[in-house]
Amino acid sequence: MERLTVIKVGGALVEHAALLDALLNDFARLEGKKILVHGGGRTATAIAAELGIESQMVNGRRVTDEAMLRVVTMVYGGLVNKNVVARLQALGLDAIGLTGADLNVIRSDKRPVKEVDYGFVGDVKAADAHKFAQLLDMGAVPVIAPLTHDGRGHLLNTNADTMAATVATALAPHYDVTLTYCFEKAGVLLDADDDRSVLPVITEADFKAHVAAGVISGGMIPKIENALDAVKKGVKKVIITSAANLTGGTTIQS
Amino acid sequence: MERLTVIKVGGALVEHAALLDALLNDFARLEGKKILVHGGGRTATAIAAELGIESQMVNGRRVTDEAMLRVVTMVYGGLVNKNVVARLQALGLDAIGLTGADLNVIRSDKRPVKEVDYGFVGDVKAADAHKFAQLLDMGAVPVIAPLTHDGRGHLLNTNADTMAATVATALAPHYDVTLTYCFEKAGVLLDADDDRSVLPVITEADFKAHVAAGVISGGMIPKIENALDAVKKGVKKVIITSAANLTGGTTIQS
Repeated sequence: MERLTVIKVGGALVEHAALLDALLNDFARLEGKKILVHGGGRTATAIAAELGIESQMVNGRRVTDEAMLRVVTMVYGGLVNKNVVARLQALGLDAIGLTGADLNVIRSDKRPVKEVDYGFVGDVKAADAHKFAQLLDMGAVPVIAPLTHDGRGHLLNTNADTMAATVATALAPHYDVTLTYCFEKAGVLLDADDDRSVLPVITEADFKAHVAAGVISGGMIPKIENALDAVKKGVKKVIITSAANLTGGTTIQS
Repeated sequence: MERLTVIKVGGALVEHAALLDALLNDFARLEGKKILVHGGGRTATAIAAELGIESQMVNGRRVTDEAMLRVVTMVYGGLVNKNVVARLQALGLDAIGLTGADLNVIRSDKRPVKEVDYGFVGDVKAADAHKFAQLLDMGAVPVIAPLTHDGRGHLLNTNADTMAATVATALAPHYDVTLTYCFEKAGVLLDADDDRSVLPVITEADFKAHVAAGVISGGMIPKIENALDAVKKGVKKVIITSAANLTGGTTIQS
């Protein structure tokens, strides 16, 4: 099967011109088909503040009322997405910016109100593998903004990590898929303060042993659980790494 | 040849929810392939003002410095474009939002500085007929925001009328193309104050006679000149009409 790399880059990267340029250069050099999924939360918070709109976070997730939805639509769908597309085009990649609404490539449902009303937030249901394959076959490089729609004309703020995992999983039957999460550390570390202590490979058995031993803890646990879930659903490997080292870091495999 | 309708809708329409919904409903019912090109200038001016950025217009065109480019990228590429895409999806159209940078579908050059420095403004060079045909063959309905790129990673604010004419002209060899400009009047009027005085058809000879007689004047002259130019380049017909009457108004033909 042909190789496909799905890379998720978070807000901190997207918002530093030099880091982003370095990352996009590395991305442009990756072999095979590729898809980029980006965040943009810090810029959204900054633009919202300039517009006098306060950002409210609950459990690390943004509460999205109508005013905040306008901001994230502008920032994720416009400012961040179109600038990344223009930069990738300059690097010779035939980038195309997409939200889940475009070509209906990623569908979601508005999150039900439980203890918290997150507002216009989408929970991802499915990605359209056929549409992505058509675009990839055209030579296009999809650049995905963390927005979806409810199918009734309303946009929804959506988690970029989940969108990346859903796209990778949907395409796993058609491609040899690597899903790469770029974050601020070099990978999964034995010593959180030492970037040289990267675990090169984690299997499910390793993961359980490391959690039991207290080596892996906190926010890294759900990250790796999601990675193992993607691997179980057919994604060849999931990499957790820094933007400076797209092909290094920690590989999660079954 | 298969029929293709390219519709340009201006800012005033895009920014009134009820008018826009009515227009998108009519657009969804049009037969054949279709492309929508939108503006968004009034919203850009409003958001810029909220951000403390003053809009400067010269000869009816927006001067676009770096701060204003950020605003139009957010508003045209994000807010307006993605909301139109989501609404068309809800109407059963497989809409896909595009700037000129996406798939490099419309190329431009940064406008040279002469008497006026318009800043980051693009003068349209060409549209990629093959890419548009591929998207149309997928069943997609392109929704185009008035932004292009310079091929070196920089976005450019671009005139939506020109983008619509360039797309229509590029696709004229492949489709039976109708280019429709929606504006606030019912069409080209014999009496500017009477919407019932619409001229149903204008040929080049009619146009010259009407201009000589003073019936057609002011801003309508370049509009019709552009329409006649598109017709000479193979566009089957150009319609100038109101949003309420997409298939009526004034038809410009050779």
